[in-house]
Amino acid sequence: MSSLHGVTWFALSVSLAFLIGPPGALGGNILVFPLDGSHWVNMNLLIEGLHTRGHQITVVRSSSSWYIKESAPHYHSISITVPGGMDIEKQDFFSSLLVNMLKIQREGASPLAFMSYYLHMLSGLSVMHRQASQFVVEMFENKALMQSLRDSRYDVVLLDPGLPIGVLVAHELGLPTVFNVRWITSGEGHFVVAPSPVSYVPTSGCITSDQMIFSQRVGNMFMYLLNRFMAIDRFVVSPHYDRLVDRYFEPGIKFYHLLQGADFWLMRVDFVFEFPRPTMPNIAYIGGFQCKPSEPLPTDLEEFVQSSGEHGFILMSLGTLVKNLPVEITSAIAAAFAKLPQKVIWKHLGKRPNGLGNNTLLVKWMPQNDLLGHAKVRAFVAHGGTNGLYEAMYHGVPVVGLPLLFDQFENFLRLEERGAAKVLDVTKISSQSFLEAIQEVLHEPSYKSNMERLSRLHRDKPMHPLDTAFFWTEFVMRHKGAAHLRTESYRMPWYSYHSLDVIGFLLTVLFMVVAITLCSIRFLCLRLCRNYKNKQE
Amino acid sequence: MSSLHGVTWFALSVSLAFLIGPPGALGGNILVFPLDGSHWVNMNLLIEGLHTRGHQITVVRSSSSWYIKESAPHYHSISITVPGGMDIEKQDFFSSLLVNMLKIQREGASPLAFMSYYLHMLSGLSVMHRQASQFVVEMFENKALMQSLRDSRYDVVLLDPGLPIGVLVAHELGLPTVFNVRWITSGEGHFVVAPSPVSYVPTSGCITSDQMIFSQRVGNMFMYLLNRFMAIDRFVVSPHYDRLVDRYFEPGIKFYHLLQGADFWLMRVDFVFEFPRPTMPNIAYIGGFQCKPSEPLPTDLEEFVQSSGEHGFILMSLGTLVKNLPVEITSAIAAAFAKLPQKVIWKHLGKRPNGLGNNTLLVKWMPQNDLLGHAKVRAFVAHGGTNGLYEAMYHGVPVVGLPLLFDQFENFLRLEERGAAKVLDVTKISSQSFLEAIQEVLHEPSYKSNMERLSRLHRDKPMHPLDTAFFWTEFVMRHKGAAHLRTESYRMPWYSYHSLDVIGFLLTVLFMVVAITLCSIRFLCLRLCRNYKNKQE
Repeated sequence: MSSLHGVTWFALSVSLAFLIGPPGALGGNILVFPLDGSHWVNMNLLIEGLHTRGHQITVVRSSSSWYIKESAPHYHSISITVPGGMDIEKQDFFSSLLVNMLKIQREGASPLAFMSYYLHMLSGLSVMHRQASQFVVEMFENKALMQSLRDSRYDVVLLDPGLPIGVLVAHELGLPTVFNVRWITSGEGHFVVAPSPVSYVPTSGCITSDQMIFSQRVGNMFMYLLNRFMAIDRFVVSPHYDRLVDRYFEPGIKFYHLLQGADFWLMRVDFVFEFPRPTMPNIAYIGGFQCKPSEPLPTDLEEFVQSSGEHGFILMSLGTLVKNLPVEITSAIAAAFAKLPQKVIWKHLGKRPNGLGNNTLLVKWMPQNDLLGHAKVRAFVAHGGTNGLYEAMYHGVPVVGLPLLFDQFENFLRLEERGAAKVLDVTKISSQSFLEAIQEVLHEPSYKSNMERLSRLHRDKPMHPLDTAFFWTEFVMRHKGAAHLRTESYRMPWYSYHSLDVIGFLLTVLFMVVAITLCSIRFLCLRLCRNYKNKQE
Repeated sequence: MSSLHGVTWFALSVSLAFLIGPPGALGGNILVFPLDGSHWVNMNLLIEGLHTRGHQITVVRSSSSWYIKESAPHYHSISITVPGGMDIEKQDFFSSLLVNMLKIQREGASPLAFMSYYLHMLSGLSVMHRQASQFVVEMFENKALMQSLRDSRYDVVLLDPGLPIGVLVAHELGLPTVFNVRWITSGEGHFVVAPSPVSYVPTSGCITSDQMIFSQRVGNMFMYLLNRFMAIDRFVVSPHYDRLVDRYFEPGIKFYHLLQGADFWLMRVDFVFEFPRPTMPNIAYIGGFQCKPSEPLPTDLEEFVQSSGEHGFILMSLGTLVKNLPVEITSAIAAAFAKLPQKVIWKHLGKRPNGLGNNTLLVKWMPQNDLLGHAKVRAFVAHGGTNGLYEAMYHGVPVVGLPLLFDQFENFLRLEERGAAKVLDVTKISSQSFLEAIQEVLHEPSYKSNMERLSRLHRDKPMHPLDTAFFWTEFVMRHKGAAHLRTESYRMPWYSYHSLDVIGFLLTVLFMVVAITLCSIRFLCLRLCRNYKNKQE
């Protein structure tokens, strides 16, 4: 068996480029609805590739977006002006959430504090979806724009359904849809399209693994009901869009069914990272599609890295929100770093921490993938965004986690469960506890070996995830949809889907059979008794 | 979009052979437990390929098997003698089932006749599983054999779980398992491993599509319960193996859990054919993996085929059971054929039908794939085994169906629903009705165009299904399993899996909260009233 060899993505990409058709020979026409903010990084990578493969890309953006530029070599854009702009383009919402979250964590999560945070988040989400529905209205009311979209004869609408603007536009234009998705209106994407037994599938917002004790299952069910029925779908998301569906589309259509009816789901998930769970034939997994082999570093960075000698270096990045971290926390981290023999490269945007060691280099930007793929990297201190974690996994670098917000806690739980990360509570860390955590990850070989095992599994695929994304997008274009891979079960009433009507009917029949049998027996007995008595008399 | 091009499997195979590693460089060691009979054709194709890729194959067979030869260039075998032999090797069981089935169909399916047929089938199945469990005992009691299996250090057990002998042996040897499966002990393979909402997933034995009216859903639920709990698992299959599990393995293990715990499922299903339904991360779809481009015909057959001129030819094969078809049926078919301008090639094993036309050639064997891929083929008359139907689909040849037994009715339903087949009741056909059916398929262009659409969808895959099978088998060998793709949910009690305990708990809490609130209000009201009365008094 030792001669069995794994396949590397690099070799795969080369041969698959040939396999799924040469770039330039395809020439489809793709309408893209990206999500603003960090999601744009993912979508941009996908459309860059699709453009290289010969497709024309049109991106629909908000005219005030500063992430999604008005023009780029690989796409042209249509800009829509929403009165008052879109909150998702603004940092304020996320910043205030972070402050709120840190406060809750520091003071101990009382149910009241949690509810206040949850309501804060919901009201923010509701505003975002109201703005997104207004975005749709601005498009639909612009008859010239809609006509030009019809005239452009797009083959497919590619969209991030976090804000489902493209779902409605695709229905109006009669076009098939491909989702580039992990989070959707009401949480993790699978919950909308695949059976999700909450007995072992953790709900978005529940920091549990797929093996839960009873109390965790109760919490998971509670959170599921809260997300699915109470808060998000019923009151926060769907109403905004159902209003539009009633106004613009034929009767009988529900927004949620349009969402479920996507032709194909490119799920930014890999089961090396995610817990295994049921899936559907029209889902392909592209988790880690942004990962690629590292390239040589710029000279100054390479020199710094080489100066670390045998000790190697540590990488730290807490994403773009880190400037809001209190300076006492960053200073504690800096002091811990100063005690290490390793060099440290720290992507830092906010106020300079105190007590920074000579071994630590603060940078505003860094080639993260190239550093994670460097032979001298020893550990990665991260906030737990999936892009960074997949890159760490791809390169087999163990992680020290400082989760701050959103899915970051759940993401780390997945690495922690596999013994590939050590996670700290950012509101409670001291210089000493941070130092101990770093040293544990550096010196306990299981962290490294577990992450390398994940890396081997993650890389061992029949096809690079990015090529998977290209293949299925073009499949939907070639065949004008993928109806044969999509169940229409969601059109059934919920009680029929769960067979409650059938179970009710069968139980009724059973009850009647038993009742009639018992009555007949009773009747016969009485009759016999009476006959017997009559005879005796 | 017209320049978007599909990919053909032929081109894919060439590049994928490189992509998933060159043959000969791998050198794994595979223990194979095939199912006797027609399933062997599928398994043999798979192990031929694995042998070409450099693996050593050991096939475990019954010493009296006449399908599975004792030796072949691509494998060596271990022969086990089961006292009395194995019924699955004998034609009698299937022949008597066919006779029974035809009788029921001809006389109209009364519930009593159906129950008698069902019980006949169950008792036959029970005997087969008793023999299979005896097969396991013969192996386990042969200490020398088991030791030599241990010493051989196999990397994986590849098996057809129709008779799950290999599941028990793999557990005893501590080896990972790969299933080559469509049918498993209790019906279609998915039902064992994936969520299967019976509201839209037809159960094995139910001739319904995925869109059922209420009465069909009742029938589907009834059949599901019958298969899953009453007949097959509880009484017909599991007891034979649970006895062995209790005898040979540590306590707490259940046979059904071993079955569900397979590392990887190579499902002989394609969703172009099968209705879409939930699936799992450790299932790959290899339906149609036997399909390949046609090769030139032998000269005499090519001459016969060319003599059909513009009319082309019709192919007919009803599998190996056809010799038991009454001669009045085959003669009616022959008479209809005689009236056609097409030529006919008929694979026929039984008594020669009367009234055979000059245009009809009876053969004992034919190169079916090469004929189905021939430019002059116009239609295929088939009994509905999946191998033949997938080949017809691959080559885009419309089908006239004469289903006889087992899954053949369900298989045709799937093609009929897509408008690619015309199905007849074999017990009721006359020469005239058969002629009309053939002419409809020949002259109504929708049959051909629908089958060609299925063909395009079926061929448009990122990877040939056979390469998919190789990739995942070797994946399990490389990583000694695929635990990260497998849920362990089946180890939960059924009420926990379905969250019934959690729902019960939440309802109890809700009830108590409501009750306490109501009691408190009542108590307060009474108190207030009393105070008021006291005051008044």
